[in-house]
Amino acid sequence: MRLPEPFGRHIWKKKKRGSAPLIATESTMKARVHVMLKDGVLDPQGEAVRHALGGLGFDGVEKVRQGKVIELDLADGTSEDTVREMCEKLLANTVIESYQIELS
Amino acid sequence: MRLPEPFGRHIWKKKKRGSAPLIATESTMKARVHVMLKDGVLDPQGEAVRHALGGLGFDGVEKVRQGKVIELDLADGTSEDTVREMCEKLLANTVIESYQIELS
Repeated sequence: MRLPEPFGRHIWKKKKRGSAPLIATESTMKARVHVMLKDGVLDPQGEAVRHALGGLGFDGVEKVRQGKVIELDLADGTSEDTVREMCEKLLANTVIESYQIELS
Repeated sequence: MRLPEPFGRHIWKKKKRGSAPLIATESTMKARVHVMLKDGVLDPQGEAVRHALGGLGFDGVEKVRQGKVIELDLADGTSEDTVREMCEKLLANTVIESYQIELS
């Protein structure tokens, strides 16, 4: 069930028989993007979760908002501006959604 | 479009005419739950995002995983164990999903 990983495959192809184990010189960076509905935009999914939690006997749940989180493995050196452009163009609908970027 | 907030309504009802502005004594805590598909579980949404980013000209996107983030406003004093129980019972399908809890 595991997806083939381009990074791993690449290293495997470069390894020569009998040579010492390759140390990966090509590193990756990770970005995590949170996409949430803006305040004031109705969130039926979050409302459904709040209602269901109440039905299960969890008291004190006052508000629930549900959003998306997208984890990206990027080539090293990718700038935050590039990730921001990905958000603006594809990952978030900026009319109703806001996004936060975490790089690591 | 803003949902009525039970917390705000409660305070409003308690306020007496002519009295000093009420200071909220009942405070809330926030929990953020990340739900991601476990490693090895096929993520077609993430795959679609990766493909679309490639199509938009973003190079170097090696892997994308998409998950959910759920933000909960809880009554003060709710324990992490309670949030964990919410995850186990409702928020995550623990057969294929893992979750992370952040309290603040």
